[in-house]
Amino acid sequence: MPDLASLTADLRAFAAARGWQRYHRPKNLAMALAGEAGELAAEFQWLTPEEAEALTPEKRELVAGEMADVLHYLARLADVLDIDLIDAARKKMARNAERFPIRESGVTSTDPVT
Amino acid sequence: MPDLASLTADLRAFAAARGWQRYHRPKNLAMALAGEAGELAAEFQWLTPEEAEALTPEKRELVAGEMADVLHYLARLADVLDIDLIDAARKKMARNAERFPIRESGVTSTDPVT
Amino acid sequence: MPDLASLTADLRAFAAARGWQRYHRPKNLAMALAGEAGELAAEFQWLTPEEAEALTPEKRELVAGEMADVLHYLARLADVLDIDLIDAARKKMARNAERFPIRESGVTSTDPVT
Amino acid sequence: MPDLASLTADLRAFAAARGWQRYHRPKNLAMALAGEAGELAAEFQWLTPEEAEALTPEKRELVAGEMADVLHYLARLADVLDIDLIDAARKKMARNAERFPIRESGVTSTDPVT
Repeated sequence: MPDLASLTADLRAFAAARGWQRYHRPKNLAMALAGEAGELAAEFQWLTPEEAEALTPEKRELVAGEMADVLHYLARLADVLDIDLIDAARKKMARNAERFPIRESGVTSTDPVT
Repeated sequence: MPDLASLTADLRAFAAARGWQRYHRPKNLAMALAGEAGELAAEFQWLTPEEAEALTPEKRELVAGEMADVLHYLARLADVLDIDLIDAARKKMARNAERFPIRESGVTSTDPVT
Repeated sequence: MPDLASLTADLRAFAAARGWQRYHRPKNLAMALAGEAGELAAEFQWLTPEEAEALTPEKRELVAGEMADVLHYLARLADVLDIDLIDAARKKMARNAERFPIRESGVTSTDPVT
Repeated sequence: MPDLASLTADLRAFAAARGWQRYHRPKNLAMALAGEAGELAAEFQWLTPEEAEALTPEKRELVAGEMADVLHYLARLADVLDIDLIDAARKKMARNAERFPIRESGVTSTDPVT
């Protein structure tokens, strides 16, 4: 079973065992995801670009924990909305490939998602 | 190959082919992820809880696209930091299981990540 | 002296007295603001719309504290970028008035900033 | 009349004239604020720290517009919750002054809100 689908199934069971389905509604989960993304950003806010590339082990652990929280809510939201995350990500990548074709030089000058 | 790892590898190649590695630094990616999480939240902001549970097909497509953007940056950030997302999510789930044990009634009253 | 300008001046002195100017750079402050906005959202994430309209005194205090944090970083960012926040807000309101004219019925059907 | 209070009153009238009070509920406004904070962060995401300190006039205009949106929703949220933003910001500054006393050297080493 694919790893993300397996995680999603386990997160669903985790929530169900605790009676959290009544909280895990789409609007709430989208809001929780924004909150976790904010906490993840906060881990980097005072770091220089160089410090952010060479995290201390403690900081790296905190960052990984916040990324896990983001993935939890993203997977839960996908689950309650019945959206296939990997499929959505693949389709978006295909659209981005059209928007940002590789130039002969092999380099484009701007970034896709702004 | 696991689906998330495969997506991550393809996103890396996508960025490399366009010379985006210089933008895809940890601090920048964490910021971009917060931006996309904000856009995802914005899709839900004026909806009632009921409307958010019964999205129109057009809205659902927009939501899936924003979720894809969140996953793109989350996977890119994990890649440049060499963090195993699924592993981090599994470890966080294990910690949450300790913090929020299932009560005899099978229901706990609060949610983990607040 | 206008209240927001006075607060901004005091926040500048507060940061300077602690040697924080080296952290309070535009990119960092924009990131910190996103983090605080995420924390504010998190206060509301599991509440029903009705609960969010009738906050307990404790919750209301937490919400006011998070809103204060958002305002702190917004004022600091405006200060380091030399942007007049009230002026910017007035200009945006004028643009929104054009985008969303009041209909004869006195009601429009959509919201400006989505 | 203080500038922020005046802006708040005008934003209330603006919303009322367009029948938006039904959308401008606390939970929705907190979510909208997170969305705008995300858009503001997105303006800075690919900039180096140096570029973020020397914005082009066009970029500066975009940033000011996003900051205006954040202030709009912050002021609207304060209004519907009947929270005095300046008062909350002053109280938070007083608490931060206790948490982060100025050392003899006049410099502390960490930042308050992390």
